[in-house]
Amino acid sequence: MALAKKPVNGMKDILPEEMQIRDYVMNVIKDTYRSFGFTPIETPCMENIGNLSNKQGGENEKLIFKVLKRGEKLKLETAQTENDVVDYGMRYDLTVPLARFYSNNSNNLPAPFKALQMGNVWRADRPQRGRYRQFMQCDIDILGEPSNLAEIELILATTTTIGRLGFKNFQIRINERRILKAMAAYSGFSEDSYDTVFIILDKMDKIGLNGVAEELEKSGFEKASIEKYLELFQNIQGKEDVAEGVSYLAEKLGNFLEKDAADNLKEIAACINDTKEAEFDLVFDPTLVRGMSYYTGTIFEIAMPEFGGSCGGGGRYDKMIGKFTGNDVPACGFSIGFERIILLLLESGFQVPGQSERIVYLIEKNYPGEKLAQVIAQAQEQRKAGKQVLVARMNKNKKFQKEKLTAEGYTEIKEFFNRE
Amino acid sequence: MALAKKPVNGMKDILPEEMQIRDYVMNVIKDTYRSFGFTPIETPCMENIGNLSNKQGGENEKLIFKVLKRGEKLKLETAQTENDVVDYGMRYDLTVPLARFYSNNSNNLPAPFKALQMGNVWRADRPQRGRYRQFMQCDIDILGEPSNLAEIELILATTTTIGRLGFKNFQIRINERRILKAMAAYSGFSEDSYDTVFIILDKMDKIGLNGVAEELEKSGFEKASIEKYLELFQNIQGKEDVAEGVSYLAEKLGNFLEKDAADNLKEIAACINDTKEAEFDLVFDPTLVRGMSYYTGTIFEIAMPEFGGSCGGGGRYDKMIGKFTGNDVPACGFSIGFERIILLLLESGFQVPGQSERIVYLIEKNYPGEKLAQVIAQAQEQRKAGKQVLVARMNKNKKFQKEKLTAEGYTEIKEFFNRE
Repeated sequence: MALAKKPVNGMKDILPEEMQIRDYVMNVIKDTYRSFGFTPIETPCMENIGNLSNKQGGENEKLIFKVLKRGEKLKLETAQTENDVVDYGMRYDLTVPLARFYSNNSNNLPAPFKALQMGNVWRADRPQRGRYRQFMQCDIDILGEPSNLAEIELILATTTTIGRLGFKNFQIRINERRILKAMAAYSGFSEDSYDTVFIILDKMDKIGLNGVAEELEKSGFEKASIEKYLELFQNIQGKEDVAEGVSYLAEKLGNFLEKDAADNLKEIAACINDTKEAEFDLVFDPTLVRGMSYYTGTIFEIAMPEFGGSCGGGGRYDKMIGKFTGNDVPACGFSIGFERIILLLLESGFQVPGQSERIVYLIEKNYPGEKLAQVIAQAQEQRKAGKQVLVARMNKNKKFQKEKLTAEGYTEIKEFFNRE
Repeated sequence: MALAKKPVNGMKDILPEEMQIRDYVMNVIKDTYRSFGFTPIETPCMENIGNLSNKQGGENEKLIFKVLKRGEKLKLETAQTENDVVDYGMRYDLTVPLARFYSNNSNNLPAPFKALQMGNVWRADRPQRGRYRQFMQCDIDILGEPSNLAEIELILATTTTIGRLGFKNFQIRINERRILKAMAAYSGFSEDSYDTVFIILDKMDKIGLNGVAEELEKSGFEKASIEKYLELFQNIQGKEDVAEGVSYLAEKLGNFLEKDAADNLKEIAACINDTKEAEFDLVFDPTLVRGMSYYTGTIFEIAMPEFGGSCGGGGRYDKMIGKFTGNDVPACGFSIGFERIILLLLESGFQVPGQSERIVYLIEKNYPGEKLAQVIAQAQEQRKAGKQVLVARMNKNKKFQKEKLTAEGYTEIKEFFNRE
């Protein structure tokens, strides 16, 4: 039977050229994170479907690839709903699996536990250019560290990694859920309306101050609250320095803002600015919301000049693991937008550094078997010396073959003929 | 809702200790194979279900994890069979995806194409100790090389890799499907009975010559054929040297064996024995069958003294890609038993070489924010110098914490107190 040639809808084959860059990036990520004391772990790509459908995953729960039950467990005749016929699902992120992993293995893990996960996740999203239904996620998380040492280490490790990949002049935009809430409370919004307010505020970079004002009005909020709220954002514009922006707000918001929340951001900023390796700016962004409702404290995002949207982000989620396991564990994580980074490197014509020399030995057809061993022995010597050696038969159209090999990056071509 | 703590049935969480070994082994594999001119590729973990159910996969096709259709495509009410409700399946090997990848991308690939694939596969096998339903496969394949240069390079690359992982005194057992067939033909078995004969022959290492004779008799084969067949195996016992064994058979089998098939194995053996880097024996094994019926020529297997069964294997399958795509392409592959190698290394107490020095900075609780930056700056210096530095808060039970850190491999612990 003939085979469908294309990958399944919305997923892609990865060719050697891209794989080389992916492997390089993965190694830089692993080496750098390891130097910060993060240890790699892995979980299965499938989870019990109940673990994936417990409302912690938000919109992603609608996008699960579900796995059919097998054997006697599958009773198709009597099945009423999807839940009757599936038992597992493909993970849509690495956070739910991490929470399960931690509750399953915490006795054998260091405290605090600094985890590095690199793995594929699956989402049955509408396929679109540059967005795939299987993609690599790359997360670091610190579990069991309540102080902002976690945020500092996460941001330093991630920015160091991105810097070592050759990116400069990017931004880390930072905010605090408690500042978000204090600004809303100060303006007179009621606590049950925060989520609505923040969803609108999140559009600031697209629709501007006036757009946000309009949408808040449409949602029926009081004019006085809206004005007070927007004045805060107006006054803080330009105060991108974290200490300056936060100090301004701390004074303005008074008792609405816990002193601890303001100090938290200022400490993080001071420490990172003093010790960072990469060239980037840490920027206070009071409009930063981050979608996931599980964040409880600091939130942050990577903004790249080369790329419109965010290239990764994260934050503190002290209440999430408890929802899964019954025991609260302080937790903070940072996820790199791995696929976006690869896309940026591919588009910029990135060359993997430190490539070993690539040599081809072209052997004429019918080259005698006894002499072949001598050629292979030469190749083995070169390989031992760290070079890449491709041993291949000479094609009929040798000129074309050599042109292709040169285009692939082989810098030396040695030919072996029968008559020699 | 509380979460199921365990991974799904038959799959496993991988903890830091094992991950460290896995990462190391993957790097050795990638580096070594790259030096032989193999280039990494990747395909999606799911394939269209039709591609996985076309009889090329043999028994594995019964073990597919199938993916439920989504949205409007799923019509559970009218569904009669599994095929009505699934569209994709998890791959059970990397060979079917390679054939699809090659037919989809061959215009953009070098000829011959030397592919390296490392990726998870899924089989809904009965779970048992040391065998999981998600596991890593690691395959190299050469597509488009008709001569035994392919076999030579595959065996050299794989044995070099295994040698660099510290294994010695293993064997590569080698045979030829054409020798298998010639021995059966010479003994008088009819061509349509070969598969049955070979399935019984495959048990030789477990049931011995007498056992094989009994089973052949039970299957109703003629006594004369059985005697002639077994005499061949008796006479060849001890002739493990490839040249000796093959020469003996070539003379004995006469016209039943193509000269080319005998020369093929002798050339491969001569070349490998002259050029190999690892310490291993290449051994002629006329009882080697290899299960997959798609093999057409040379077949081989890794046998480790530390491990009962095979630790990998492969062979030539010149007719398989044509069955998928309509165009025959000469093909030969070698698969390392990645999970078995990891198991052997774990059991032997393997230590990953070249580990960087690991240091802990323990910081007392309430250490002042201003001074924290100085500690982090020190850590950053050490990290730049290639060391692993974990910065962590001091626990109440500091003695226990330090013992644990030492057990994790941290060799230096530095403490920072408020009062200093």
